[in-house]
Amino acid sequence: MTGPAPLAVSLGDPAGIGPELLAQAWLNRRAEGLHPFFAVGGAEIIAAAAHQCGLDVPVVSISDPAEAVKSFDDALPVLGDGDGEYRPGEPSRQGAELALASLTRAASLAVSGAAGGLVTGPISKARLAEVGFSHPGQTEFVAEACGVPVDDAVMMLAGPSLRTVPLTVHAALADVPSLLTAPLIERRATIVAQALQRDFGIEHPRLAVAALNPHAGEEGRMGDEEGHVISPAIAALRERGIDATGPHPADALFAPHERGRYDVAICMYHDQALIPLKALDFDSGVNVTLGLPVIRTSADHGTAFAIAGKRQARPGATIAAIRLAGECAARRLGTQG
Amino acid sequence: MTGPAPLAVSLGDPAGIGPELLAQAWLNRRAEGLHPFFAVGGAEIIAAAAHQCGLDVPVVSISDPAEAVKSFDDALPVLGDGDGEYRPGEPSRQGAELALASLTRAASLAVSGAAGGLVTGPISKARLAEVGFSHPGQTEFVAEACGVPVDDAVMMLAGPSLRTVPLTVHAALADVPSLLTAPLIERRATIVAQALQRDFGIEHPRLAVAALNPHAGEEGRMGDEEGHVISPAIAALRERGIDATGPHPADALFAPHERGRYDVAICMYHDQALIPLKALDFDSGVNVTLGLPVIRTSADHGTAFAIAGKRQARPGATIAAIRLAGECAARRLGTQG
Repeated sequence: MTGPAPLAVSLGDPAGIGPELLAQAWLNRRAEGLHPFFAVGGAEIIAAAAHQCGLDVPVVSISDPAEAVKSFDDALPVLGDGDGEYRPGEPSRQGAELALASLTRAASLAVSGAAGGLVTGPISKARLAEVGFSHPGQTEFVAEACGVPVDDAVMMLAGPSLRTVPLTVHAALADVPSLLTAPLIERRATIVAQALQRDFGIEHPRLAVAALNPHAGEEGRMGDEEGHVISPAIAALRERGIDATGPHPADALFAPHERGRYDVAICMYHDQALIPLKALDFDSGVNVTLGLPVIRTSADHGTAFAIAGKRQARPGATIAAIRLAGECAARRLGTQG
Repeated sequence: MTGPAPLAVSLGDPAGIGPELLAQAWLNRRAEGLHPFFAVGGAEIIAAAAHQCGLDVPVVSISDPAEAVKSFDDALPVLGDGDGEYRPGEPSRQGAELALASLTRAASLAVSGAAGGLVTGPISKARLAEVGFSHPGQTEFVAEACGVPVDDAVMMLAGPSLRTVPLTVHAALADVPSLLTAPLIERRATIVAQALQRDFGIEHPRLAVAALNPHAGEEGRMGDEEGHVISPAIAALRERGIDATGPHPADALFAPHERGRYDVAICMYHDQALIPLKALDFDSGVNVTLGLPVIRTSADHGTAFAIAGKRQARPGATIAAIRLAGECAARRLGTQG
């Protein structure tokens, strides 16, 4: 085999839409040209979810990731015997334990290289916290599994229309201005630029750095973070040869004619990055973690307990996450056609 | 005449794209079904701008707004003799004076009822300030001309995909949390609801109120303005019979399947309202001032001095602003078909 190893896909909360999305993604494997993947745990649950949703998805148990390649054409490979009863919309302690076990094993397979990349299914952070998960989210968990400082694991949202990176994520809006520093912007933007080169095949990535204040502060009349924090960071990035521009007024940055002028928008806070992404690419937004030794992607949505098992969940984002993980893994190997 | 009086359109800065957009809008009057309008001042400038852009637009001087109706079919009516030389891309003191005179007269015609509504052309605030304009923007100027407290003149952005209202506008992001109060949200949301009924023909307007913090603060874990400020305001609005919901996590609020669930998104700050509007409706976003005794709209863009006279300016937003002003004026009169 010359391509990357198969991708490990964690189950997510088994009472959510993760299992059925895995089945849907497998059904679309040929149409979407997906790199071979396998689920980690939940063989019975996935089979039951597929059945309940009226999807014809045979499931095959494998004991080694490498086996996924040869069975992938005919059945959805599942590694590991963690399993349970399928109860869509009824999250439970057992389900949370299974989700955590799946995530843990999938991450470790990616770290060891047995899996070519990691795609994480949707979990409930509150449920996982009840069974001992102490991380703010899966991104931080994966960073720790990789031995990378959590601050160097950078979330990027990628859709067909644009890519955005929120420099601050789960922070109150009132705290955002004080969390932003020139070194933070510089460090994270550098990680983004390197990842776009290595994993996305963009030789000279163009980074558009958003302003924090309306109209980029109008020369200090409405906030001065542009002058004191953001512009110095951009200047430092440019000195290091990174094509960073800005600070750009954020309202205009995502207009159609602007979106073609950069490869990624570096945003100052969560909603600045997520509002345009979800407005434009809701069903196909992928959450990618940059700066890790492993490829990690996930669909940019939650467990959606309310619609689990009802065949209402749309698989676009999961398919996009698997496709992107396969593409990035291939680029890292240098085998991209 | 049973419909509203003709609309007054102010020239904007004569060195910007205002004059050529007036000519373009007039050319599209039939295709777009525009209510009759007239420009205020700048007959020579508009004629020169049209000529430079290769647009066949005859201009006719009128001395009373009512004359605009009969000449509108054959020529672009222009009221008033303020004028100057057309120097696209070269803003000047004389140009700023002309822009201010045009705005002042157009507003007063709307206030007197001689004009059925006011559409303002793009000005340069910095240039206008040099000739004595002391307001932060045209909205505040028009509010004062109407004798309305500036806090009760509410900016709404309206496009084909959505309507948004920024509750705070030209404020540093760091100041936003302290500017938001429950009474402010209540008062402005009430003005919005009334305007949607009266001017937009929406009998039971649905107001979706955005959260300030990511994930609506996750029950106080990331900011508590949702619980302390926004939710109480929503409760008070509902008690008064206004269909307000939220606080909704802002990143999901503008996704395609959400946008059909409300008539307007009430946003906490400038970019929260403007990012989705410009991402989705860049070329057709209209800035509407709610809460005034007059109809007032404007295209949601600036003077664009750099492209003035080059026929690069796209008239979509100006046409949309004129069309919307005509529709709102007709609804106020109760003559909408």
